[in-house]
Amino acid sequence: MTQERKNIAIIGSGLVGSLLAIYLKRYGHRITVFDRRPDIRNIEFSGRSINLAMSNRGWNALKAVGLEEEIKTIAIPLDKRAMHVIGKPEYYQKYGKDGEAIWSISRGVLNRKMIDLAEKNGVDFRFEEKVWDIDLPEAKIFTGESEKGEWKEYEYDLVFGCDGAFSRVRHKMQRRSRFDYSQDFIDVGYKELTIPANSDGTHKLDKNSFHIWPRGKFMFIAMPNLDGSFTCTLFMPFEGDVSFESIKTKQDAVLFFTTYFPNVKNEIENLTEDFFKNPTSAMVTMKCYPWTYWNKVALVGDSAHAVVPFYGQGMNAGFEDIYVLDQIIQELGNDWEKIFQTYQERRKPNADAIAELSYRNFVEMSSKTADANFLLQKKIEKHFASKYPDKWVPAYSRVTFSLRPYAEALAEGDAQEAIMKEVMKMPDLDKKWDSREVEEKILELLG
Amino acid sequence: MTQERKNIAIIGSGLVGSLLAIYLKRYGHRITVFDRRPDIRNIEFSGRSINLAMSNRGWNALKAVGLEEEIKTIAIPLDKRAMHVIGKPEYYQKYGKDGEAIWSISRGVLNRKMIDLAEKNGVDFRFEEKVWDIDLPEAKIFTGESEKGEWKEYEYDLVFGCDGAFSRVRHKMQRRSRFDYSQDFIDVGYKELTIPANSDGTHKLDKNSFHIWPRGKFMFIAMPNLDGSFTCTLFMPFEGDVSFESIKTKQDAVLFFTTYFPNVKNEIENLTEDFFKNPTSAMVTMKCYPWTYWNKVALVGDSAHAVVPFYGQGMNAGFEDIYVLDQIIQELGNDWEKIFQTYQERRKPNADAIAELSYRNFVEMSSKTADANFLLQKKIEKHFASKYPDKWVPAYSRVTFSLRPYAEALAEGDAQEAIMKEVMKMPDLDKKWDSREVEEKILELLG
Repeated sequence: MTQERKNIAIIGSGLVGSLLAIYLKRYGHRITVFDRRPDIRNIEFSGRSINLAMSNRGWNALKAVGLEEEIKTIAIPLDKRAMHVIGKPEYYQKYGKDGEAIWSISRGVLNRKMIDLAEKNGVDFRFEEKVWDIDLPEAKIFTGESEKGEWKEYEYDLVFGCDGAFSRVRHKMQRRSRFDYSQDFIDVGYKELTIPANSDGTHKLDKNSFHIWPRGKFMFIAMPNLDGSFTCTLFMPFEGDVSFESIKTKQDAVLFFTTYFPNVKNEIENLTEDFFKNPTSAMVTMKCYPWTYWNKVALVGDSAHAVVPFYGQGMNAGFEDIYVLDQIIQELGNDWEKIFQTYQERRKPNADAIAELSYRNFVEMSSKTADANFLLQKKIEKHFASKYPDKWVPAYSRVTFSLRPYAEALAEGDAQEAIMKEVMKMPDLDKKWDSREVEEKILELLG
Repeated sequence: MTQERKNIAIIGSGLVGSLLAIYLKRYGHRITVFDRRPDIRNIEFSGRSINLAMSNRGWNALKAVGLEEEIKTIAIPLDKRAMHVIGKPEYYQKYGKDGEAIWSISRGVLNRKMIDLAEKNGVDFRFEEKVWDIDLPEAKIFTGESEKGEWKEYEYDLVFGCDGAFSRVRHKMQRRSRFDYSQDFIDVGYKELTIPANSDGTHKLDKNSFHIWPRGKFMFIAMPNLDGSFTCTLFMPFEGDVSFESIKTKQDAVLFFTTYFPNVKNEIENLTEDFFKNPTSAMVTMKCYPWTYWNKVALVGDSAHAVVPFYGQGMNAGFEDIYVLDQIIQELGNDWEKIFQTYQERRKPNADAIAELSYRNFVEMSSKTADANFLLQKKIEKHFASKYPDKWVPAYSRVTFSLRPYAEALAEGDAQEAIMKEVMKMPDLDKKWDSREVEEKILELLG
């Protein structure tokens, strides 16, 4: 693990950029993190963030640099979904086995903490310094007030692009020949809303649940914060009958919340105000390849693979990139060309897999939750999994509570889906879904 | 067809840009065509062009503005493929019915001619003026010597991006939210090579054939020019055993041509020289959406949909864009917002279809031509089509010799493929492929 000291620039001071800085600093490198935005520690949060759901992959990456316990102090474990279905009392669905949970963290709170930790370890941050261009073969970056203005030039040994889904670093790589790239937006947008704490600082809803109000084409979720509030997200089509476009006035919004979300009606004042104050954001799946340039430049996190948020894995995947990259550094030492090559080859299939899994969850949530056959299938799977936990690990658990590669979770999920396709052909299944016959059929197909 | 006179900028003086200028000029608009490159009429051609295969869609677009006959004087009809297979004498495959042909045209010769024609009709060309930025809502364009230098600003009523697969206009649209985009490179590149004319100006190979030397993972093609020469293209993987990367010296090249293309051995001197003189180019499938911005900006041709060249439809698709756009202008008059909306909705599925068809042809040529089952299937299809020409129109004919939408050709091709999948399950098919039994099976499946 002896490493030649390098002069390294990281573009982007978000979660991935600051964690990568902490990782690389351990080797004694000189690290400078650039960000076009002001220091998040000195400003209000943006109002366009979905709360994070940290799960095993994220914790694993934090643990490796001794940060797990410290970050857990600013996180709240959620061991279940709280389902708010119209016409039914609230009910709960456990996420996994006892002790398995996802953790709600405010993106802003976590980001501030990570920058503090990086700075304490000797990482330099240069906020409000905008990177406009990158000379890839020379690992030079050019910063300045505006794209057309005067630029300052810096030369580094290595440059990491941790500047998110709309990465400038990637943008430069994209202009080379033979760079594969795609960005696909979904026609659903999201908006951040807030349910404030009770006056005594307690939470208005169960604190250890991920709250979901599924409504077919749209959905409302709430995740707890330490201060007693909930950060909520409304997912809804941009256009159409019930859509962001269709809610134009305060009355529209009040009617919308009252109609579809009766049990949050006490919060309507607040939700309506947020609705018009906060922006509506778009969601994109972004894929690209290659992720690296020679032994000079590498993309990490959302800049290499942005996913839609419906599996809660975006940050976890980015943190896992760093963990895997670090494993490779420990294997290969100072051969950065080989480190980068191995990193992209090892991570790309897993990034593609979590993109696919995340997109499928979106499709499932928006179009399948009202399908009786789909619900029957899920009921059979759940029943079987509870009887044979070793033979049937749900895809959700593989993704969320395991450290096995995402690509494996996708492949296993596909194999389960093929089995269930056969099972669903059995006659009178709705009457015998929990029968021995169905069980034996699954066991037989599992071979 | 009365149109309010508009001040229109077209970015790109290539084939699509210059034909679009000719089309729009008919309505009396003021048209300025910008191109960052010099006037192609004053320079040598680039050495990186595949000859064009003009087919029905291209001719149809030219005919509508009275150019078909004039352009035919610089084109050579090819009514068949000439197959150069190792260990077999040269043999021919007719493309279609009698009178059906694709036409070989030099891109450079055609482009010069189109610019001449546009200029004669009163279109202004501004060569060597580089467009760096576009203000989409204001239809302003900014030009200058360099990206960081002084810019000149122009304001138009409408701006058309005809600036190819790496379009600057699209690049600007791409930075908006909710713009879907993908670029996918294939791992095969191409290089232009030449077989010169005989000393008496005649062609060294049959003039009215599209010559193909299929070699599995790579392929050589030749298309005739008016001057007796052939423009040839070598398609080959960038990396690997037999690849552009593996041919490093003159000896490597000589050995390569002698081994794999014995019947062009007299041309080796010339081919080898070209091999090292001409660049190796990459091929990309590019898709995006939307193609237009309000009533201000529209993408036409490769800037909206670049395809790999294995169906010979790139230019034909671009010309058909113009033809369809013009039909819509004639339907809708002066409502440019609706014209652009209708144009993109009507063309997008067809652009996606020709992209898919072109990519499939690449896969077919590079991996299936050695598959005995695939060849048997093709033989059965051909036999059946010759007996029942009304019941089985090959996909190639639908794409090349018809004006029906590409999306229809793709759907029909998929339906035929599903039928053949059933047929290929019949036992002992290699012994009875031309039997009445197989015919009846296909007729039954055609329903």
